[in-house]
Amino acid sequence: MTAHRRSADEAATTFVRRHIGPSPRDIQAMLETVGAKSLGALMAETLPSSIRQKAPLDLGTPLSETEALSHMREMASQNHVFTSLIGQGYSGTVLPTVIQRNILENPAWYTAYTPYQPEISQGRLEALFNFQTMICDLTGLDVANASLLDEATAAAEAMALAERAAQGKTKAFFVDHEVHPQTLAVLRTRAEPLGWQLIVGDPASDLDKAEVFGGLLQYPGTSGAVRDLRPAIAGLRARGALAVVSADLLALTLLASPGELGADIAIGSAQRFGVPMGYGGPHAAYMAVRDALKRSLPGRIVGLSIDSRGQPAYRLALQTREQHIRREKATSNICTAQVLLAVIASMYAVYHGPEGLTHIARTVHRRACVLAAGLRQLGFAPQSAAFFDTLTVDAGARAGEIAARALAERINLRLGEGTLGIALDEATSPKDVEAVWRAFGGKLAYAEVEAGAREALPAELKRATAFLTHPVFHAHRSETELLRYMRKLSDRDLALDRAMIPLGSCTMKLNATTEMIPLTWPEFGELHPFAPRDQAEGYHALFQRLERWLCEITGYDAVSLQPNSGAQGEYAGLLAIRGYHAARGEPHRKVCLIPSSAHGTNPASAHMAGMEVVVVACDSRGDVDVADLRAKAEKHSQDLAAIMITYPSTHGVFEEHISEICEIVHGHGGQVYLDGANLNAQVGLSRPGDYGADVSHLNLHKTFCIPHGGGGPGMGPIGVRAHLAPFLPGHPDSAAPTAVGPVSAAAFGSASILTISYIYILLMGGEGLTRATEMAILNANYIASRLDPHFPVLYRNAKGRVAHECIVDPRPLKTSSGVTVDDIAKRLIDYGFHAPTMSFPVPGTLMIEPTESESKAEIDRFCDAMIAIRQEIAEIESGRWKVEASPLRHAPHTVHDIADDLWQRAYSRAEGCFPAGTSRSDKYWSPVGRVDNVYGDRNLVCSCPPVADYAQAAE
Amino acid sequence: MTAHRRSADEAATTFVRRHIGPSPRDIQAMLETVGAKSLGALMAETLPSSIRQKAPLDLGTPLSETEALSHMREMASQNHVFTSLIGQGYSGTVLPTVIQRNILENPAWYTAYTPYQPEISQGRLEALFNFQTMICDLTGLDVANASLLDEATAAAEAMALAERAAQGKTKAFFVDHEVHPQTLAVLRTRAEPLGWQLIVGDPASDLDKAEVFGGLLQYPGTSGAVRDLRPAIAGLRARGALAVVSADLLALTLLASPGELGADIAIGSAQRFGVPMGYGGPHAAYMAVRDALKRSLPGRIVGLSIDSRGQPAYRLALQTREQHIRREKATSNICTAQVLLAVIASMYAVYHGPEGLTHIARTVHRRACVLAAGLRQLGFAPQSAAFFDTLTVDAGARAGEIAARALAERINLRLGEGTLGIALDEATSPKDVEAVWRAFGGKLAYAEVEAGAREALPAELKRATAFLTHPVFHAHRSETELLRYMRKLSDRDLALDRAMIPLGSCTMKLNATTEMIPLTWPEFGELHPFAPRDQAEGYHALFQRLERWLCEITGYDAVSLQPNSGAQGEYAGLLAIRGYHAARGEPHRKVCLIPSSAHGTNPASAHMAGMEVVVVACDSRGDVDVADLRAKAEKHSQDLAAIMITYPSTHGVFEEHISEICEIVHGHGGQVYLDGANLNAQVGLSRPGDYGADVSHLNLHKTFCIPHGGGGPGMGPIGVRAHLAPFLPGHPDSAAPTAVGPVSAAAFGSASILTISYIYILLMGGEGLTRATEMAILNANYIASRLDPHFPVLYRNAKGRVAHECIVDPRPLKTSSGVTVDDIAKRLIDYGFHAPTMSFPVPGTLMIEPTESESKAEIDRFCDAMIAIRQEIAEIESGRWKVEASPLRHAPHTVHDIADDLWQRAYSRAEGCFPAGTSRSDKYWSPVGRVDNVYGDRNLVCSCPPVADYAQAAE
Repeated sequence: MTAHRRSADEAATTFVRRHIGPSPRDIQAMLETVGAKSLGALMAETLPSSIRQKAPLDLGTPLSETEALSHMREMASQNHVFTSLIGQGYSGTVLPTVIQRNILENPAWYTAYTPYQPEISQGRLEALFNFQTMICDLTGLDVANASLLDEATAAAEAMALAERAAQGKTKAFFVDHEVHPQTLAVLRTRAEPLGWQLIVGDPASDLDKAEVFGGLLQYPGTSGAVRDLRPAIAGLRARGALAVVSADLLALTLLASPGELGADIAIGSAQRFGVPMGYGGPHAAYMAVRDALKRSLPGRIVGLSIDSRGQPAYRLALQTREQHIRREKATSNICTAQVLLAVIASMYAVYHGPEGLTHIARTVHRRACVLAAGLRQLGFAPQSAAFFDTLTVDAGARAGEIAARALAERINLRLGEGTLGIALDEATSPKDVEAVWRAFGGKLAYAEVEAGAREALPAELKRATAFLTHPVFHAHRSETELLRYMRKLSDRDLALDRAMIPLGSCTMKLNATTEMIPLTWPEFGELHPFAPRDQAEGYHALFQRLERWLCEITGYDAVSLQPNSGAQGEYAGLLAIRGYHAARGEPHRKVCLIPSSAHGTNPASAHMAGMEVVVVACDSRGDVDVADLRAKAEKHSQDLAAIMITYPSTHGVFEEHISEICEIVHGHGGQVYLDGANLNAQVGLSRPGDYGADVSHLNLHKTFCIPHGGGGPGMGPIGVRAHLAPFLPGHPDSAAPTAVGPVSAAAFGSASILTISYIYILLMGGEGLTRATEMAILNANYIASRLDPHFPVLYRNAKGRVAHECIVDPRPLKTSSGVTVDDIAKRLIDYGFHAPTMSFPVPGTLMIEPTESESKAEIDRFCDAMIAIRQEIAEIESGRWKVEASPLRHAPHTVHDIADDLWQRAYSRAEGCFPAGTSRSDKYWSPVGRVDNVYGDRNLVCSCPPVADYAQAAE
Repeated sequence: MTAHRRSADEAATTFVRRHIGPSPRDIQAMLETVGAKSLGALMAETLPSSIRQKAPLDLGTPLSETEALSHMREMASQNHVFTSLIGQGYSGTVLPTVIQRNILENPAWYTAYTPYQPEISQGRLEALFNFQTMICDLTGLDVANASLLDEATAAAEAMALAERAAQGKTKAFFVDHEVHPQTLAVLRTRAEPLGWQLIVGDPASDLDKAEVFGGLLQYPGTSGAVRDLRPAIAGLRARGALAVVSADLLALTLLASPGELGADIAIGSAQRFGVPMGYGGPHAAYMAVRDALKRSLPGRIVGLSIDSRGQPAYRLALQTREQHIRREKATSNICTAQVLLAVIASMYAVYHGPEGLTHIARTVHRRACVLAAGLRQLGFAPQSAAFFDTLTVDAGARAGEIAARALAERINLRLGEGTLGIALDEATSPKDVEAVWRAFGGKLAYAEVEAGAREALPAELKRATAFLTHPVFHAHRSETELLRYMRKLSDRDLALDRAMIPLGSCTMKLNATTEMIPLTWPEFGELHPFAPRDQAEGYHALFQRLERWLCEITGYDAVSLQPNSGAQGEYAGLLAIRGYHAARGEPHRKVCLIPSSAHGTNPASAHMAGMEVVVVACDSRGDVDVADLRAKAEKHSQDLAAIMITYPSTHGVFEEHISEICEIVHGHGGQVYLDGANLNAQVGLSRPGDYGADVSHLNLHKTFCIPHGGGGPGMGPIGVRAHLAPFLPGHPDSAAPTAVGPVSAAAFGSASILTISYIYILLMGGEGLTRATEMAILNANYIASRLDPHFPVLYRNAKGRVAHECIVDPRPLKTSSGVTVDDIAKRLIDYGFHAPTMSFPVPGTLMIEPTESESKAEIDRFCDAMIAIRQEIAEIESGRWKVEASPLRHAPHTVHDIADDLWQRAYSRAEGCFPAGTSRSDKYWSPVGRVDNVYGDRNLVCSCPPVADYAQAAE
């Protein structure tokens, strides 16, 4: 028997074969269709040879799935789960297992895409609507969005909203000295490039003098103090400034709401509603506003509209989506939400209901009161007599020693300068309280102290208003009922677990189960982001290795894992460029060149980084017009800060001139920001750091398998060349001061989901990742070849190749038949597919990205559907149907349609509902007909419709 | 602040509230409907006061879900996961995580019921059909069933089949000396009461002389030896005996199949196809037979039939179900299958395909060859030159020392008398092989030894035939494809995660997520059943506590956790009675009284235990006819062994005379077997051990929350009074010899799922369990009250109360309208429900059991559906519809129906498909129309239909 070599059989059992859709035999057939001799030959025709990387990726030997999980167990054992009573915006919580298994660990939820196609997203839209209702009810405000990234960036978004509302009257913003340090740090980062001044102080004393466009108050404060904010809020409003309150949702079940106190805006985190701390994230932050501000609310908002039959149907309201971002006029670059986490938080509220949440809050408060009573007995009276769940005590020189004794009890306290903070939560037991007392030097029995404990909520601030009165928060108290509710909602949606989601630019590839498993282990889930470093060695080993791998993949020298979305990454990258110029004495370099084809977040991020956007033209091929670029760079040579360029382009093509473009910009002293949105077309083939780029963000939720979660979470680390490394985002939690402040609340952003990308790389290895890129490109070219005769492919490179995606152009068909791109997208639902990306980057077109994970069979099913739709359009062109009477315009067809006894359409029931022989038995039915967008925006309903409407919706 | 007491708020957050459906307010409303003053009053009217238990259950303080999981972590830490190379029918395996998460941990699969209603079970029926195809292909036989309990009982079933086929010509059965010891032990247990003789020997030498009705050979043998069984098989067949081969499925990918060798029957375990060892189970065993034997095949068989439109549809073939079991004429009491595990094993094959399985087998074999080469170098030549994955070596006096050194390497070997067995598996790495060598005293390097290793499969036994040629085993090689396939199948089925399953006698209550979690932890999943006891202290602590709790709940003195199904429990209980009588010198006591209303397994089990069944009449009320009982007991006084009685009765009523019945039987020297199928109506209210029963089995998969898994696994422990304790089943794995042999392959049956029942009791506590019983009774009486005006309730006790279920009687409606109970059952599918139990125990009726977990809202939805169906029947009675043209007869309605352009029915589309305002958007669609049973049995197709049929099925 000879030494064993990897045979074809064995290859069939490796993870790479599981991740990649087409079989070796399929690949041969597909190469024939696209007319390429081999994968290698296809790559040579697709990428400019000048940028091809020379050496293969060096990422070590890939592991099997079993080995990878065993490796992760080892990493996990290096994290130590202490009881963290640090607070500061992060709390222990109990995620009901039924929610964990059936949402967080369920591909029907986590592989769903952002609900841009509302008809096939009614399930998660309802869950997000519940989230908004919950936020509105608890905050006492009128309109809430469907989540932001974290509390600190939510505060920054609120500040920007306030500034815009003030229309330039003043440039100062007041910040309560009781806000969390990381919130303040992020506000500073955000304010500085825009020239806004922060005034930090005690609202009771320091607000009077300040001339501000708004103010942020925290409720309860970071020390735990519960203060009556009404005077401060009234003061702000009296001078025309907006009052923003950062509020703890659990506390609001017992305390008068921000709305009742007079606030205009409330922000905060929904983490403690069941979402594990995860060493910083992901969690859903929230923002709610008064009705008058609703059209300025950033982020995604779910609204209730009607469908083609006039029945209620949810949708994203006000077009708050990437493609509609207000480009350089934007005050926010927010697009990703934390959908999966918002869904979890909303289900936590659905399960517990108002009485359950109140009970939890009362229990936590009672424990805090008992803790306070005991501490008083021990001579450590809390600073504030009024508190909810958090105490701060002065311990002077003994603070360090007490904190150390707490550590010996496996408890983390918040150590300040001579102070100790102790924040209790849902998971705190009487035994934990006794352990804290021991750390303070006393042996007290909980039951004995409890008898003498007093409540500590000010009578005048007690909540008197009802919340969560909607039936959804009352009907699911048994596990069976909740389970069925979650199943019902997920069945309404079409996610990756049922069909290909061919979204151009969004890379809906496999999110492998093995990649998802460690995430919910307590060693990764239950770490507080500000826990001592030595409790998180497993995390840090993972960060370091992941950073090194990402450097190897991109050719950059350093990586920051902090930005918790792609847009945050863009912003952090531009701040690095800004810091670099400033450090070289060229702070005036503020011009940012952006091609007209760019993603809308690019100019928005540039604006936020204090830059001026200058648009560069594109040629008919969709490539950057190099002559125009040269002219603009020349013109702005003195002030040139950067170019932001997406590569391969948003048109899905590897432009030939990328190296030249980098040279031009560098020649004028500018930096190259290479948008890494399409990095998945490059991994293993070319490295931005090699061919001239200075900085990129990497969408881990696209290229590196973090699932979309129905619209979030994401992660957007940035890679930079060495000269920009000193300008990566810092964090107040880290020891050394940094040139650039933090962009996210936590030092490592949404740390827990980094495990997903880490495992993906671990399983694939360099060869596997390269293979994935090649297959993504083959799949896209295969689609281009199959569809081009029916829908012309709009952009290709000189050799006729597309990169990892392609844009097909149905616009001529609109002229010939009246069929719109919307009609095609909705008709695809009848064929069982999510539509490709619509009208981005080119209005009226469809951008298709199959990813490497789709099999030839599924891609063929999709192409067959597109071709069948083209034939249906031909029927309109030939006069068989008027477009208004065609199955395309009536799409998607629902059970309501097929149930009509009176069928008076120009086509048969089967033609409408089961086109081109699609499966009947296994059909996915859109739960609603085409949603009326105009109606929804005219009649904005974002929470709690009257119950009668619900009854109607359920027939 | 006063000391904290449990408030109503807090109650809302405890597990009991999550487990029980109705809210406190609902309970009040329901009590009003049933006309009871309080729950207590209702119980007093339901149970005879004489049997009410006096003291509340003492089960300790219930834990919260978080506490319970933390307790389980602690238990798990007392189990130690060594690398078990023991073999003996149990192998390490790698369960692909995508299957683990999306089947084993997915309620859509694990909460499904047995597929008796085929229309709403097409998904798991297809998966089981794949299982059968896989077994037929690998064994080379014609028809396979959809799983048996374990390899040892499968061998016993094969023996019984062979005996029946031989029609009494001889009473001896040959057993290969190479069968696993536990198989032999179970065969002995099974043969003895029936008077069959076992002849154990070497088939090569000892078979010639034997006059036998059949013989069992093992392939490869338990020692690992691969022998050419053709001569032995030919010898058996030559004398008209059936040849049974117990075969390893993985080995069969490389070895000539039993069918090719000439065998009539193949049996074995599918455990190593991805199913964790779980300290003994559950796993799926298989049995396959030649075509001529198919109508004798025990267990459930999935067949392909057609539906009302002539489209292919799966169903259980040949009526092999509990209700149709052949009572006292039965040679088997098998009803539970191991569906969930068979589904997993089939998906493992779907994922790997023939090339993947072959690759795994080759790798394992190669490792074994290298191991053998190394052992030879070390002076330990394997006993057999031909082997697949298992070696046995003679080590003489050094065996113990080597085994101890292996333990120090965290490796378990199989220690015999001077021999060591080493069985490799999919999970064995070269490092493991090196560690084994070290245990044998040698430091060898795997790579070096590999070069000189020879293959060890005899050329004449190499497999030459293809297997798994069906497309389903080729189309799902990527994770995405497999995920979608599993989702598609699960979407075809209706399980507890979507709707109430009101099955009388089957207790489809909540299977809580928290109860399901530890099961898949490696510390519970990866233990070999014959691993040293000190590696399983966590398991044994759990067993002991569970036994104690079950004693407390039942009033018995001892419990055996071995029987791995309810029917096995019955059998074990009767063996205990048999052993008791024999030990008292009364072996002639063989008469077993069984009421006519009994479950079919009762007489079958009695027959298997060597007893003679005498049927006792029931009165018009459905109760045991005490006079008849008295007469029969009198008549058989000398020979009376036992009575088997179900309590509350299979009619769902607490008979008043239960204590009297027990006294009569005891008075004649008999023992009382109280069938515990309905124990869930007694827990906390009455204890069989208190009011006269001597032994009961407890269906943990009913009363104690083990999910039905689509038709298995189950567990049927037995409780006995002290005098029967010496006659509980033993096991060859235990030190002391026992009076009664084992009934299952593993000493603790399906040990891993005992965690589920354990956690359930942990979470509920005595008070919670009692509450659950009361609520189950309230829910059933509520249904009886609501339905009685429309469908008369057949049996009640003297006070008009039913127990935990009720039988409603639609038979008069058949007379008045022609509507059958089948029509009602199928029509319920249109309303979104699984039918109640049909025609058991009374033909033509429906038995309904809501369990405590269903909410009032869901129960009302069900009752409303039943009442609406009654109104539809009234339309037939009134002449609006002929029954043949009614929506009842056409039920279930499918998408195919509603899609018909030509609708010529007497009712509208909406009346047919969305009756009584059922939800349209969220409708569950039966994937097929009513399945034709007669066609399916006439044209039995149990594996591999031609591919064309599949294409047709997919339209």
